[in-house]
Amino acid sequence: MTAVFSHPIVVRYHEMDMQGVVFNMWYLAYFDEAMSAFIEANDLAYTALQDDGFDVQLVHLDVDWTASLRFGEAADVTVEVANVGNTSFALDFAVRQGGRPVCTAHIVYVCVALDGGGKQPLPAPLRAALTA
Amino acid sequence: MTAVFSHPIVVRYHEMDMQGVVFNMWYLAYFDEAMSAFIEANDLAYTALQDDGFDVQLVHLDVDWTASLRFGEAADVTVEVANVGNTSFALDFAVRQGGRPVCTAHIVYVCVALDGGGKQPLPAPLRAALTA
Amino acid sequence: MTAVFSHPIVVRYHEMDMQGVVFNMWYLAYFDEAMSAFIEANDLAYTALQDDGFDVQLVHLDVDWTASLRFGEAADVTVEVANVGNTSFALDFAVRQGGRPVCTAHIVYVCVALDGGGKQPLPAPLRAALTA
Amino acid sequence: MTAVFSHPIVVRYHEMDMQGVVFNMWYLAYFDEAMSAFIEANDLAYTALQDDGFDVQLVHLDVDWTASLRFGEAADVTVEVANVGNTSFALDFAVRQGGRPVCTAHIVYVCVALDGGGKQPLPAPLRAALTA
Repeated sequence: MTAVFSHPIVVRYHEMDMQGVVFNMWYLAYFDEAMSAFIEANDLAYTALQDDGFDVQLVHLDVDWTASLRFGEAADVTVEVANVGNTSFALDFAVRQGGRPVCTAHIVYVCVALDGGGKQPLPAPLRAALTA
Repeated sequence: MTAVFSHPIVVRYHEMDMQGVVFNMWYLAYFDEAMSAFIEANDLAYTALQDDGFDVQLVHLDVDWTASLRFGEAADVTVEVANVGNTSFALDFAVRQGGRPVCTAHIVYVCVALDGGGKQPLPAPLRAALTA
Repeated sequence: MTAVFSHPIVVRYHEMDMQGVVFNMWYLAYFDEAMSAFIEANDLAYTALQDDGFDVQLVHLDVDWTASLRFGEAADVTVEVANVGNTSFALDFAVRQGGRPVCTAHIVYVCVALDGGGKQPLPAPLRAALTA
Repeated sequence: MTAVFSHPIVVRYHEMDMQGVVFNMWYLAYFDEAMSAFIEANDLAYTALQDDGFDVQLVHLDVDWTASLRFGEAADVTVEVANVGNTSFALDFAVRQGGRPVCTAHIVYVCVALDGGGKQPLPAPLRAALTA
């Protein structure tokens, strides 16, 4: 049995829009923060990945919202590995606030060289973190 | 024959990440800006929609990236109506930079009342703008 | 003796610029977050202030930077009351990372009515939180 | 007689806060965008500066607000050179909307090497752009 990884976030004032709910783009910041925390929880600091000359880029994203988040609310972003390929991997995210589902997302990342060398096979430490 | 609506954007410094490309969340700001401009080009100011007590929220989003944008680059965001329902509508977006495709997106919006009254049938001016 | 209030932040990926340091505007988000946390630590939820029909706006800001912040770094934002007037108040902020000073700021806020009624005398709960 | 440089901006939806006005941090994005445009208008592309291994960082900022900006409003950001030193320079900004003053700002920038080499004398093309 594997416990699902969960990253806590708290909604900040500047993330709110005129409707009094979090503007859509900030969810992508939440997913990014949760992805980094997930990798780090699996023994790979995201900065270590970068020090080795690698980073990741999004190639596909889909999000389905069923509710909103409001200013000051604490929420959890769960992260699960959906797929690990040669040069890419996919994660599933779910945002929940007090047990209430807010949205789910599926993101496909490709590994790239920071020197502009393009797509790269997942380096061993990243592969290890994703299959931990 | 209908000309496709196109909204110009220029990449700003704060939208760049450590990799020297636009960070993913800013594309959602581009889509939002293009959506407003599209509606306005069809004779409905977005602020007029709000003055009437309505706004829109995202319920579904998917994006596929094939390239990146860099600082200072000028790009075009095209907008096409994919679907118009009772309380929701969907738009297709494509971002191109100098003829080079960068990403495509499909977004489903639901119309909501600003007073917290939830989902609403599309008001007539919005329906007219979307079916112009 | 009064302990200085301190709010912890962690630098997020999207706050980084092409130079590999936090882009200047995000410090204002840190100050805002620290201000809300400071008020809340003094027994006034920021959302309660809003529920009562009040909010605050910046009328003056100055910041002096002596260092930068990098991705993933944990820093502390200290908050001290500099002045409490009739319709305005001022806070002093300092950002430190691992004992290293990063920047200091002085911000003057004015209290406003959410209904557009303009400048207002500080409501009693806000005055109490600032003079606690 | 020198004409004052002016850069047009349009307020975007995600820059609005719950009060229905632009959240303070976005003004720093406006100043940054205007600074780049100002330098470019004086025959130095900001990206050329970076290609030569240089960038700028803020060491001091002060802003005074007298009004707000709302969604969709078009405003102008004027830029004037306040000072040109050896490793630093200062610019004065003013934001006006339809003739209405919104805020003024004074920003001191220091020139840095992109390779982490720290403070640098202003490279000749930048000095030329600032004294044009």
